[in-house]
Amino acid sequence: MTSIDLNADLGEGFGRWRLTDDEGLLSVVTSANVACGFHAGDPATMRRVCELAAERGVTVGAQVSYRDLAGFGRRAMDVPPAELAAEVAYQIGALEVFARAAGTRVAYVKPHGALYNRVVRDEEQAAAVVDGVLLAGGALPVLGLPGSRVLERAAGAGLPVVPEAFADRAYTDRGTLVPRGQEGAVVAEPESVVARSVELARSGTVTALSGAVVEVRARSLCVHGDTPGAVDLARRVRERLEASGVRVEAFA
Amino acid sequence: MTSIDLNADLGEGFGRWRLTDDEGLLSVVTSANVACGFHAGDPATMRRVCELAAERGVTVGAQVSYRDLAGFGRRAMDVPPAELAAEVAYQIGALEVFARAAGTRVAYVKPHGALYNRVVRDEEQAAAVVDGVLLAGGALPVLGLPGSRVLERAAGAGLPVVPEAFADRAYTDRGTLVPRGQEGAVVAEPESVVARSVELARSGTVTALSGAVVEVRARSLCVHGDTPGAVDLARRVRERLEASGVRVEAFA
Amino acid sequence: MTSIDLNADLGEGFGRWRLTDDEGLLSVVTSANVACGFHAGDPATMRRVCELAAERGVTVGAQVSYRDLAGFGRRAMDVPPAELAAEVAYQIGALEVFARAAGTRVAYVKPHGALYNRVVRDEEQAAAVVDGVLLAGGALPVLGLPGSRVLERAAGAGLPVVPEAFADRAYTDRGTLVPRGQEGAVVAEPESVVARSVELARSGTVTALSGAVVEVRARSLCVHGDTPGAVDLARRVRERLEASGVRVEAFA
Amino acid sequence: MTSIDLNADLGEGFGRWRLTDDEGLLSVVTSANVACGFHAGDPATMRRVCELAAERGVTVGAQVSYRDLAGFGRRAMDVPPAELAAEVAYQIGALEVFARAAGTRVAYVKPHGALYNRVVRDEEQAAAVVDGVLLAGGALPVLGLPGSRVLERAAGAGLPVVPEAFADRAYTDRGTLVPRGQEGAVVAEPESVVARSVELARSGTVTALSGAVVEVRARSLCVHGDTPGAVDLARRVRERLEASGVRVEAFA
Repeated sequence: MTSIDLNADLGEGFGRWRLTDDEGLLSVVTSANVACGFHAGDPATMRRVCELAAERGVTVGAQVSYRDLAGFGRRAMDVPPAELAAEVAYQIGALEVFARAAGTRVAYVKPHGALYNRVVRDEEQAAAVVDGVLLAGGALPVLGLPGSRVLERAAGAGLPVVPEAFADRAYTDRGTLVPRGQEGAVVAEPESVVARSVELARSGTVTALSGAVVEVRARSLCVHGDTPGAVDLARRVRERLEASGVRVEAFA
Repeated sequence: MTSIDLNADLGEGFGRWRLTDDEGLLSVVTSANVACGFHAGDPATMRRVCELAAERGVTVGAQVSYRDLAGFGRRAMDVPPAELAAEVAYQIGALEVFARAAGTRVAYVKPHGALYNRVVRDEEQAAAVVDGVLLAGGALPVLGLPGSRVLERAAGAGLPVVPEAFADRAYTDRGTLVPRGQEGAVVAEPESVVARSVELARSGTVTALSGAVVEVRARSLCVHGDTPGAVDLARRVRERLEASGVRVEAFA
Repeated sequence: MTSIDLNADLGEGFGRWRLTDDEGLLSVVTSANVACGFHAGDPATMRRVCELAAERGVTVGAQVSYRDLAGFGRRAMDVPPAELAAEVAYQIGALEVFARAAGTRVAYVKPHGALYNRVVRDEEQAAAVVDGVLLAGGALPVLGLPGSRVLERAAGAGLPVVPEAFADRAYTDRGTLVPRGQEGAVVAEPESVVARSVELARSGTVTALSGAVVEVRARSLCVHGDTPGAVDLARRVRERLEASGVRVEAFA
Repeated sequence: MTSIDLNADLGEGFGRWRLTDDEGLLSVVTSANVACGFHAGDPATMRRVCELAAERGVTVGAQVSYRDLAGFGRRAMDVPPAELAAEVAYQIGALEVFARAAGTRVAYVKPHGALYNRVVRDEEQAAAVVDGVLLAGGALPVLGLPGSRVLERAAGAGLPVVPEAFADRAYTDRGTLVPRGQEGAVVAEPESVVARSVELARSGTVTALSGAVVEVRARSLCVHGDTPGAVDLARRVRERLEASGVRVEAFA
């Protein structure tokens, strides 16, 4: 039986500010990418999200980021590799405390925002992120784009890798994401997102912008939770996957 | 044979800025209070200090602080207890990553600056700091002032406590520190600091500002390393202690 | 004809995070307390709020705060007076740029959150806030609680002062606010808030928790905009004031 | 008679941390690039540096930076243009308060670190910096590298521009700086730095790494103050310039 993981970003508030519907998402996803304080995620929120995730049996992952509260981690930064590695490890360690206190563990690492995009191609920063994961110990799996430098580096270092796909993003004929600026980059129609999720999970394929069917082998689907209706859409994705005979479960 | 621990604050730079003579201090002290990023201490510095400490066999402790880079953790803050506890745990967890990667562990917790002073008397924040230490797991010892609320709370929660003394600070007849603002609060004369260190370690007493000899039972002496000549003075303290038959060794 | 000012906190998001309904509030209030980056308020938001305020003829004020993004400026801090004065001036100066670019000026200063509460009684910090306002130049009016140290100090320094009242807060028989923790401290019932606003504006009195009518001379009423329905309530307050023959206009 | 300006970065500490010898530099330079809080420079330091500069008749400039305390503004960042412009204006406004309070004005703007390097070639960020300067009002001159995009944009927007040169950096045959990573990029020998300063000021030329004499028309020379001996070297540069018949004076 085919199975797939559903992951989402959680705990992306900071202090007084809230962004993600953490309770809602935790009733849908199987893996929670918890913000660790560098782009979002104050310690009290990290603690609460870990507790909720542990209660619901949702796997906890460290969503590591550039140090950039003002830009929500969306400002690509030229951080020297040794500093970036240490920053990644710092975030994982901080989250680990709350995961353990809640009776679970940090089970994987997913770079956030501009760092996520940067390590698709940037060898130096991809290597730095992997160094940070190694520094944190425990041989944690790395979640990222199929074919990205960071997954290659992680695999080369002996870490498990988890390729992910986006049902709400358009793909090129080469199986890469259509850049956000470009027309048609985002799939807005809910039913289409649901159908693409099933196609990705069952066939390991997606219909590209050109209409061609291309292969995208993913062990996890990323769903979003920071817009109105997002949790409902995620829930529909999960229900349709299960109705289609796909087992929705954490990869870890 | 009498023994005493020497502790000092380390890694108190941030990014481009340096403050403490980390290499110098690590050749003298037995316990390193490593800044964890909230008042000082960037991740790359935390990593380096942990590596140096492990190499030299110096015990690593988490020097936890209010979130206050601009005030170097010296601005007392009314942080709600649940937030403070989570902030303390966050810092311990972040440091633990670098300690483990260096082949050692975080072996104790010492509050820094305004938080250190606050938890001498503030029940609520003392309890929050202890909650943070418990949250971080591992039943870590807490280092602080004899008679402080934080040591009482820690002991009450089953945590080991380590009372410390300051050879370069004047004491009242009740064995408490003369407040910094007051005349004579700081002992500036090096030979006097050295002699007081030996008295504290050997007799568990100190000569108060009034001339009275008062009891101060400490398992650790705090030495400073952020002023010119400070490391030399710390070295003299250590040499005189050893020459006086006191074994200088980590409490942990 | 009686007149009253309506002020509200605006621009209290930061980067990706939003909190206040700035557009909604700017259609109701006559004075906008704009967050200046220390507890909330990124530069792009400050700019936009100033532009919107200028378009609508709403007066711009600097809502100065402790440096505390994580605690939203609600953590009282022992900031040394010289540093606090400089921090206050820094925030006013930063906002002034955007006010001027929008064709208006910073017309007053209102401390935020924990700083607001602290300078009701703390002589040292009240003096530091006033020093900061003086440093910024222009003899800006200070908005605060009647009888507070900060208004006394401001008046003593020759600055205009603007006492404000809260229609949604309970008052003691001495005309001071019932502390938030206490039962009945907040007036939740909308119609009651509206009626109290009219009483405050027309009679300069308010019905205290005890039922006694006490004098509260205010030139401005503070309305809130960070909860659902808050803007609607503020609009009702304004409409009722105008229907009662009170002219709603900026004090400045 | 030939004249030249000497500029240096000042006030580059933060809170407890010090970096630049502000008093020493202010006895040598004619223009002070004052850090504005984003890469360094707390408000109290900004105030003090402005007061000292005003006392000594040194011109005050705003040294604007990416928001990056941890990286000291040396981490290039992809900041969206509208946000970058607002951040630049914010910093200028904050400094203006202290300059005016000290009896002077912000007289120019110089980007710092990674932003300085980025706007040599990046059209979008160069335009954003100029937008920020325009937003701040007063048509402030922009100090930067000859031929840089930021100076072109500034000139195009009607702002005065001040090209600067570095006597302690090697130049290519095209009159551009040899990148720091490259061998020979930095001129370490003090006498050589002094001689090159005179050549730059008197002839508008410099001897490139190849030995060729190339034209570098600069109205300001940048001297450094963050290393031991740096202030002494800056003083020697100034003395030799004056002994060579060059008038050392602010460009503004």
